[in-house]
Amino acid sequence: MKFVIQRDQLIASVQDVMKAISPRTVIPILTGMKVEAKHHGITLTGSDSDISIESYIPAEEDGNVNVEQIEEGSIVLQAKYFPDIVKKLPEKTVEITADENLKVTIKSGKAEFNLNGQDAAEYPQLPKLQTDDSFEMPTDLLKSMIKQTVFAVSTMETRPILTGVNMKLAENKLSFTATDSHRLASREIPIPNANTEFPSIVVPGKSLNELNKILDDTEEKVEISVTNNQILFRTEHLNFLSRLLDGNYPETSRLIPDQSKTVIYAKTKELLGSIDRASLLAKEERNNVVRLSTGEGSLVEITSNSPEVGTVAEEITVSGIEGEELKISFSSKYMMEALRAIDYEEVKIEFTGAMRPFIIHPANDDPILQLILPVRTY
Amino acid sequence: MKFVIQRDQLIASVQDVMKAISPRTVIPILTGMKVEAKHHGITLTGSDSDISIESYIPAEEDGNVNVEQIEEGSIVLQAKYFPDIVKKLPEKTVEITADENLKVTIKSGKAEFNLNGQDAAEYPQLPKLQTDDSFEMPTDLLKSMIKQTVFAVSTMETRPILTGVNMKLAENKLSFTATDSHRLASREIPIPNANTEFPSIVVPGKSLNELNKILDDTEEKVEISVTNNQILFRTEHLNFLSRLLDGNYPETSRLIPDQSKTVIYAKTKELLGSIDRASLLAKEERNNVVRLSTGEGSLVEITSNSPEVGTVAEEITVSGIEGEELKISFSSKYMMEALRAIDYEEVKIEFTGAMRPFIIHPANDDPILQLILPVRTY
Repeated sequence: MKFVIQRDQLIASVQDVMKAISPRTVIPILTGMKVEAKHHGITLTGSDSDISIESYIPAEEDGNVNVEQIEEGSIVLQAKYFPDIVKKLPEKTVEITADENLKVTIKSGKAEFNLNGQDAAEYPQLPKLQTDDSFEMPTDLLKSMIKQTVFAVSTMETRPILTGVNMKLAENKLSFTATDSHRLASREIPIPNANTEFPSIVVPGKSLNELNKILDDTEEKVEISVTNNQILFRTEHLNFLSRLLDGNYPETSRLIPDQSKTVIYAKTKELLGSIDRASLLAKEERNNVVRLSTGEGSLVEITSNSPEVGTVAEEITVSGIEGEELKISFSSKYMMEALRAIDYEEVKIEFTGAMRPFIIHPANDDPILQLILPVRTY
Repeated sequence: MKFVIQRDQLIASVQDVMKAISPRTVIPILTGMKVEAKHHGITLTGSDSDISIESYIPAEEDGNVNVEQIEEGSIVLQAKYFPDIVKKLPEKTVEITADENLKVTIKSGKAEFNLNGQDAAEYPQLPKLQTDDSFEMPTDLLKSMIKQTVFAVSTMETRPILTGVNMKLAENKLSFTATDSHRLASREIPIPNANTEFPSIVVPGKSLNELNKILDDTEEKVEISVTNNQILFRTEHLNFLSRLLDGNYPETSRLIPDQSKTVIYAKTKELLGSIDRASLLAKEERNNVVRLSTGEGSLVEITSNSPEVGTVAEEITVSGIEGEELKISFSSKYMMEALRAIDYEEVKIEFTGAMRPFIIHPANDDPILQLILPVRTY
């Protein structure tokens, strides 16, 4: 195997693929990165068996030459050293060769590394997904759906199914739902002309977090295909494959109250700032609890107290309050994460009493929903 | 006590003073920050008994009003909460009041914090240093002297005196020296018209690191005064007081070879880059050792190897080699830190054989000296 490649392109691909490689894995060869040279381009592969990432660098693209002097072949390199080496090479191009004894040479300028490789034949084959049953969506929209839901997955292994995001595609609608049983985040978007459907799959939150780091914030399409136990996200130069979580995701729609007794409209940033401040004194004790009380006119008071440290109170003037008076306590952490996820100037919060879950929407009625269970205070 | 202060000024002062405050201290009141209001301005104080920092915000400065509505008094606030509160306040001004029951109110816009303070009378008095015997130097020069030496202090508590930087002022010359017994860093500068001298004091490396973070990179003067067991650094708005280390600093001048057998002149960046690359494979085993060998003409080869991983070699063309052939091994970490500290385009390295310490200077003969003990390899 031999090729000469643009260093910066190689760095970017290596960084993407590294997201799937874990130094702790039961299959030793998976601590390495597979490098495969074909005449049309170079493919890097990393996997921790839950997530697999393939990054492709075409030999030529848009009239630019990325890779030259290609002799086909493949090798597995130690992922512990390869990324740092590539990053610190002195020149803009890198020559990588591997001989029949698995000796790898990396040259750039006057610097030469000789590394011990491993046989690519021993690297596990990634499953090939049927991609006929796929649908497409803009990459930036996928990223924003992930960001708006994934933070709400459970981090507790007691109910493993809740560590994933529930995805459904039916009737040309795609929905993401995540819950840790104290709060829930969901978003739905239309997918016109989807030529596939899937009822209910659960993608590990970790996979979606890694995917989100790798995807560029572009309007270009990402193609998504699902089988029984895998999901594949494919962009022009990237294949991101994740296993799915086994088990049935709980039916969450019944959690969502369909009526409300108090509705508050507020500027997202203002509310967020005031909850952030109130949370400062609630840090350790009492689980970050802050209290919201409606007041005269369109005044809302946010308060918190810590017997040892002191108290904090802030009145904010909201855009509107409808319905009953309300005093309710909730986790400031959940509330801040929900408000940040909404990412819209104004929010609508619907309460059904101090002991019932409440829901937060963007005021423009986008189908983003954040639900939070209140905290009982005595 | 009462005053209304510009939030951003308060934030900056609080951040400086926090550098001296440790949540773990044997004197409980030192986990707090003292706030003292006088008609002429506000003083914040923090201390962990090794380091004490006072930051002063004048009520008026250059025609700008920083503090208004001052009622004199003082209070100690819990440092665990105060900085975050100040940082997150909604408006540009902050009103702080403390009543006779040590209740503190912090108001900004509609946000109001009520905190429990502690009696400032219980806060230890900082020692007042005689500042008649002081000298001045530009702040940026002090910062660069610290940066060029402090990294070489020992982190081992086995010889506590080596965890400090040795400072001397004599014959209008100020010198800083640090060593961990494997390498040594020193710099000397002229101090014209110093009306004081001190023979040999040792300032904790930690103190100098904190001081360096606080000082601005400006040409304005910092005033330095030394007593038996304390050193005070004073700028217009800052008093930084550190205790000195007890004990005799070892005589280091005899370590420095006064002749050399091989001299290499090299571009600092080029040499640094190549050692950085060679160090990549030397990370874990063998203590980051790399090898330098002189070659034909003005070629120098930097190599390293790790039996498990592979080898790396790089030839660089240096500006000049004088004297005997040389093969020498040393810690890449020490060498990189020394080269970075020199901060000059070209270096002169003087060797006295493979088993003797070698020294690195800027090629312009500035009195900066970095000394490194080589590593014996078999």
